[in-house]
Amino acid sequence: MSLVIPTHPQTRADMVRACVHYRDGCKVADLTLDAISDVLEVDDGSFVWVGLYEPDETLLHKLQEEFGLHPLAVEDALKAHQRPKIDSYGDALFIVLHTAGSSENCAIGVGETHVFLGPRYLVIVRHGTSTSYAAARERCEKHPELLRLGPGFGLYAVLDYAVDNYFPIVEQYRNELGTIESHIFDRQFKRETIRRLYNLKRDLGRLRLAVSPLADVLNQLVRFYPQLVRPELMVYFRDVQDHVARVTEATDTMREMLTAAMSVNLSLVTAEQGEVVKRLAGWAALLAVPTLIASWYGMNFEFMPELPGRFSYPILIAVVAVLVTVLYRGLKKARWL
Amino acid sequence: MSLVIPTHPQTRADMVRACVHYRDGCKVADLTLDAISDVLEVDDGSFVWVGLYEPDETLLHKLQEEFGLHPLAVEDALKAHQRPKIDSYGDALFIVLHTAGSSENCAIGVGETHVFLGPRYLVIVRHGTSTSYAAARERCEKHPELLRLGPGFGLYAVLDYAVDNYFPIVEQYRNELGTIESHIFDRQFKRETIRRLYNLKRDLGRLRLAVSPLADVLNQLVRFYPQLVRPELMVYFRDVQDHVARVTEATDTMREMLTAAMSVNLSLVTAEQGEVVKRLAGWAALLAVPTLIASWYGMNFEFMPELPGRFSYPILIAVVAVLVTVLYRGLKKARWL
Amino acid sequence: MSLVIPTHPQTRADMVRACVHYRDGCKVADLTLDAISDVLEVDDGSFVWVGLYEPDETLLHKLQEEFGLHPLAVEDALKAHQRPKIDSYGDALFIVLHTAGSSENCAIGVGETHVFLGPRYLVIVRHGTSTSYAAARERCEKHPELLRLGPGFGLYAVLDYAVDNYFPIVEQYRNELGTIESHIFDRQFKRETIRRLYNLKRDLGRLRLAVSPLADVLNQLVRFYPQLVRPELMVYFRDVQDHVARVTEATDTMREMLTAAMSVNLSLVTAEQGEVVKRLAGWAALLAVPTLIASWYGMNFEFMPELPGRFSYPILIAVVAVLVTVLYRGLKKARWL
Amino acid sequence: MSLVIPTHPQTRADMVRACVHYRDGCKVADLTLDAISDVLEVDDGSFVWVGLYEPDETLLHKLQEEFGLHPLAVEDALKAHQRPKIDSYGDALFIVLHTAGSSENCAIGVGETHVFLGPRYLVIVRHGTSTSYAAARERCEKHPELLRLGPGFGLYAVLDYAVDNYFPIVEQYRNELGTIESHIFDRQFKRETIRRLYNLKRDLGRLRLAVSPLADVLNQLVRFYPQLVRPELMVYFRDVQDHVARVTEATDTMREMLTAAMSVNLSLVTAEQGEVVKRLAGWAALLAVPTLIASWYGMNFEFMPELPGRFSYPILIAVVAVLVTVLYRGLKKARWL
Amino acid sequence: MSLVIPTHPQTRADMVRACVHYRDGCKVADLTLDAISDVLEVDDGSFVWVGLYEPDETLLHKLQEEFGLHPLAVEDALKAHQRPKIDSYGDALFIVLHTAGSSENCAIGVGETHVFLGPRYLVIVRHGTSTSYAAARERCEKHPELLRLGPGFGLYAVLDYAVDNYFPIVEQYRNELGTIESHIFDRQFKRETIRRLYNLKRDLGRLRLAVSPLADVLNQLVRFYPQLVRPELMVYFRDVQDHVARVTEATDTMREMLTAAMSVNLSLVTAEQGEVVKRLAGWAALLAVPTLIASWYGMNFEFMPELPGRFSYPILIAVVAVLVTVLYRGLKKARWL
Repeated sequence: MSLVIPTHPQTRADMVRACVHYRDGCKVADLTLDAISDVLEVDDGSFVWVGLYEPDETLLHKLQEEFGLHPLAVEDALKAHQRPKIDSYGDALFIVLHTAGSSENCAIGVGETHVFLGPRYLVIVRHGTSTSYAAARERCEKHPELLRLGPGFGLYAVLDYAVDNYFPIVEQYRNELGTIESHIFDRQFKRETIRRLYNLKRDLGRLRLAVSPLADVLNQLVRFYPQLVRPELMVYFRDVQDHVARVTEATDTMREMLTAAMSVNLSLVTAEQGEVVKRLAGWAALLAVPTLIASWYGMNFEFMPELPGRFSYPILIAVVAVLVTVLYRGLKKARWL
Repeated sequence: MSLVIPTHPQTRADMVRACVHYRDGCKVADLTLDAISDVLEVDDGSFVWVGLYEPDETLLHKLQEEFGLHPLAVEDALKAHQRPKIDSYGDALFIVLHTAGSSENCAIGVGETHVFLGPRYLVIVRHGTSTSYAAARERCEKHPELLRLGPGFGLYAVLDYAVDNYFPIVEQYRNELGTIESHIFDRQFKRETIRRLYNLKRDLGRLRLAVSPLADVLNQLVRFYPQLVRPELMVYFRDVQDHVARVTEATDTMREMLTAAMSVNLSLVTAEQGEVVKRLAGWAALLAVPTLIASWYGMNFEFMPELPGRFSYPILIAVVAVLVTVLYRGLKKARWL
Repeated sequence: MSLVIPTHPQTRADMVRACVHYRDGCKVADLTLDAISDVLEVDDGSFVWVGLYEPDETLLHKLQEEFGLHPLAVEDALKAHQRPKIDSYGDALFIVLHTAGSSENCAIGVGETHVFLGPRYLVIVRHGTSTSYAAARERCEKHPELLRLGPGFGLYAVLDYAVDNYFPIVEQYRNELGTIESHIFDRQFKRETIRRLYNLKRDLGRLRLAVSPLADVLNQLVRFYPQLVRPELMVYFRDVQDHVARVTEATDTMREMLTAAMSVNLSLVTAEQGEVVKRLAGWAALLAVPTLIASWYGMNFEFMPELPGRFSYPILIAVVAVLVTVLYRGLKKARWL
Repeated sequence: MSLVIPTHPQTRADMVRACVHYRDGCKVADLTLDAISDVLEVDDGSFVWVGLYEPDETLLHKLQEEFGLHPLAVEDALKAHQRPKIDSYGDALFIVLHTAGSSENCAIGVGETHVFLGPRYLVIVRHGTSTSYAAARERCEKHPELLRLGPGFGLYAVLDYAVDNYFPIVEQYRNELGTIESHIFDRQFKRETIRRLYNLKRDLGRLRLAVSPLADVLNQLVRFYPQLVRPELMVYFRDVQDHVARVTEATDTMREMLTAAMSVNLSLVTAEQGEVVKRLAGWAALLAVPTLIASWYGMNFEFMPELPGRFSYPILIAVVAVLVTVLYRGLKKARWL
Repeated sequence: MSLVIPTHPQTRADMVRACVHYRDGCKVADLTLDAISDVLEVDDGSFVWVGLYEPDETLLHKLQEEFGLHPLAVEDALKAHQRPKIDSYGDALFIVLHTAGSSENCAIGVGETHVFLGPRYLVIVRHGTSTSYAAARERCEKHPELLRLGPGFGLYAVLDYAVDNYFPIVEQYRNELGTIESHIFDRQFKRETIRRLYNLKRDLGRLRLAVSPLADVLNQLVRFYPQLVRPELMVYFRDVQDHVARVTEATDTMREMLTAAMSVNLSLVTAEQGEVVKRLAGWAALLAVPTLIASWYGMNFEFMPELPGRFSYPILIAVVAVLVTVLYRGLKKARWL
């Protein structure tokens, strides 16, 4: 869950991805940051949606002034590596989300999103490799009847978008589990399989830490903040809750199957080893019998009636051949070969 | 839990399996979809039961209009792959069930049923391979004294029918567990057994995910919606709750036994391997002794008193025979052979 | 937990084991079933205790009429295989218990008892191999001061009797665990031990399913039904609760020890196998040394100074004897033999 | 947890260890049992503390009369083998504690203490090998300002004393765990270690069953009985609660470490076995090479150019010596020897 | 978690690290202990912050007098080895924290801090190797607007400082886990790895016991003591709560990964052993074939056509060479060599 925080300086345009004024569910205008306080002066139920990408301290303090954000929340928003959580500061909320995004080379980049939600503003601060919330904002603009209920609907759109981004990850993990399973039931033991299994276990642990606290965040949202999240929006948040539950269930199921897979793998490895020993024993027996016989007739007694016989050697060959064949068949039948 | 969603177009007759008007617990008439709104205009406590099979979007939107269903619920009903859940929208409920049906070739087809329950309607949307709820509806019609309490009794009949369909699955899993157990205690280790064990574990996990959320669904039904589920019906819903508990208990017990079976299997495999090594060692010893003796008298010393003896060879044969016999008996007694 | 439901027809006398009228804590008279309704007509606080053994449908419907039992409860009472539970129907309760009875040949026969408790009746329906509740009824008659509090005291007596019957089972399982433990720490591995361990695990699972729901049943009894279970009786029911807790604790402890035993067993089996390999290696070494030497002097070089020597052979014998002895002692000391 | 109930008759003096009358936190007088009722007649807030050691039935019934104890509680006090619990009977409490006492020969003797607490009496019934509560009573007498709050303070002193007696046991178990750990990481596997590990697991299970129910007992004491346990005493009971939590935490931690130890032990045993096999293989290789060569020159071909050579034998010796040395070093380096 | 309690006598200056009087969020003066009661006489909302390091009994009793601390709390503060907890005594709180400090030689020194919080005082008692809270106090002095809310803010600063000190420990453990993981997936099994794994498990268990009770302590602080912890400070305490949650989550994740690592390790060790056996078997086969052939032609039959042949020996050499080469390649391909 390491975040790639860019160290090179960014321009303000890079950092402020959106700053829009909404009234009655419709976009009024794009704003400059300085215009925000003017707009908020008029108490007409309108609100401002600000989207930031890895803002620097100056920018966040600017917003702190404009919206009157709580210093502790701003401090949190400056550093990544927060747990998913919800904090309430007076009439405002500060929410931390972990976002997922499977990048091209199949590594999973995890980002963080911090949300400030007030009665008249929604500030989204994005860190790391997550995708932009422009799509979520567009979706909101298509539902003016809900967006007029205030920035809470915007929060829903952002949460829904973020949670839905977990599903491809879950799918990817499910595929990996499938691959591991098929390797495990493969005859050929591969050290690599165990390593992948272990890594998947760790990744699932991380996913769970990212997703499961959201259940609590959503629970608090639908219960305790009716002035920010209107009752009409409850069903929407509950829908997100349900998606979170699906991700959590899928994760837990996979974790459990992984444990079973480990256990099964040990059984199979042990059994395979038993097979090897059996086969080893079988071949040893097959060679030991003629070796014994050969040693036997290598003895130097003066009087061994078999030795001088004209046909002793061919008879012996025949006897050994029969013995080995019988033994071979017996071992084959008993599955020792 | 993959659902076979038919891609070929269906006629409306295929999709609408039932559309019946009930008043005072008795069937009044079969309706066309268009007639529904006319019937509901009169507030006479009557209600409409609609049964659908994999409806297309047009059809669901038609029903949305007729009954005033919530758009989010309709959106859910259009896609399969929901978790079992209960959502309340105003005075209506939307319930998702997973249904089970063991098909002929012993594979388990899982379907989904979505239920819309309003004060005056019950809409059942069936997906996948579950059996029709016609039987449940017939049962309702035999109890007009309960059906007159409203569509809640219909919901009970559907839930009861769906949950009872899990019992054959449980039975099937129990048999599979029995087979696996007997294989495990079999002397002969079979790789296949481990695979079946693993598969059963996965299937039980799925069954649990399908059934256990129903406990919560039923709990909410009997507690929070007295206007939809009349107090007189409580005992019936509690009966379903009890059936859910039985399925859950059976599943949990089997899961636990599977874990024990895995552990026992590992012990047995390891022990079996020990037996193999022992037997291998036993036979090696039995052959090593005469081999040593044969090698011994294969030495080329000029003065070995045993070699020229007239009876040395037969004596040696006798000695080896005795040694091997004694050794064989000893090893047999010590269970190394 | 299979119940032996007799298929041959029973006479009513076989099925009705008791039908007694109690007033003020004292037995008034034995009744016929038909006389029940007459007796109940007079509202004098008296009540009727009916004891049935595997009643047929006709009989149960007769009682349903006499006492006004709820149809769902009667339906449940007709089939065995219920979970332990408590259902309330209006002013009456329906309780399902699992009963235990260790039969002579050490198999454990599990029965079911269904109890209907109303303000003026107590109907006990016994299924399977449990012992008769006559003893419980006699005990009640010895405490008229408590029996006058109504049929709730009868229910206590029945529950107490049923729960106390679990203790011998627990004892039997504890002995079995002891036997398994001693076998596990035995040097000699026995396949049979693992099987017994597995069976005990299964049996304990069953016992838990039978007993642990009683905790909830009793909890509900002491909390929610003061009109049926008078406050004066609370302490008695809490005593039963305590017995249930003891059985559950004992079961859980044994289950946990079984898991540990499995784990310990695997360690011991693995270690034992290591010992076998060590000993095998030791003996192999002991034989390999003289075999090598014998092979050595079996070589056919023309010029081997040792061969023609007069005392070469005895010297060799001496050398081999010394070598083997030293090796033997060394291996013995290192515990490889 | 077997209690040694003495079967030989005891005198009443043996059984009644203390019977003291306290008023205003100070000892008034030692009483005879018969004098108790006289003393209690005067409602002056004074109370009687009775300490018994394994009383017989007659004695307990005597006390039942004097204090009006509930028959069920007296019945419980007559038999040992109760679970730790708290029962309330009207205005009185009956409490069961398990007590620990590590006797000299390192075996742990577990006793039981039953406490009857009423507004004006505290009856302590001791069973088994626990130490006398005389020390606890003396401690009470040193704090008259707390003892004047009633017998609740006496109860605190008894509980505190009993719980503190668990700490040496915990310490003893901790030492045993340390010993087992050091044995496990020892090179030499000892069967005995596994047995001790298993026994410790069982002992810890017992300790937990004895201690953990006390958390609930104390919880109820501080919450539900303000008339018996005065608010001023809350902090004292909470202190005992904290001690119980410490014992429970220590027990749980040790149980967890034991599980890890079992797992680690299996890994080490398996790995050790692998080492043995490796060493076995190494030595086998070291012997197999000269054996092969010796066999080779034991062949009887007429034309083998090496055989007649004058220096063939010493050359061969040199070759074998070099081969074996090289092999030995190679195996040593690869850690196979 | 052993504490190094210094046994040599300390001067009072060593023990009293700070004694400061704060009014309206600003430092008024450093005080002597005797001056405290004078200062507190005036009820002007000012408070006294006392910092102690391993005080002796005399000193603590002095403070008990000055602030009116509860005797039980003082008794606790005299002995180390308390669990993290919160106790309320009238209008004051007594809090026990475990503190962490990774000392230079990588061992982790654990200390304890006891806090007495009253409406007008904050007494910090430090035991063991934790760092001084001077930094926390300085931080407070920089926020007079919060410090004026009373000693609660001081408590926050101390808690925040103590919890933040756990993060380096967590980081250290995470590194250790990483090292162990890389060792486990190393080809070369190391006994030492298992020991480190076991030790890490124990250390994580200790860390959890130290940190997780803080969740409860903080929960009680923000809920139940509004007069000591002003509502304005809630968000600060919730921030600490969040840090505690992060430490706990990290610990739990690591514990879980350790269990997986143990399991994976066992699989790898077992598999490695199988590899060893396979290679052993392979080399045995490679040597057994020429040995058998050599023994064969060591037989002493008079009529063996191969023996007198002029080119028999070179032909045999060729045959053996071919056989061994083929066998070698076959085994190499089958990964037995």
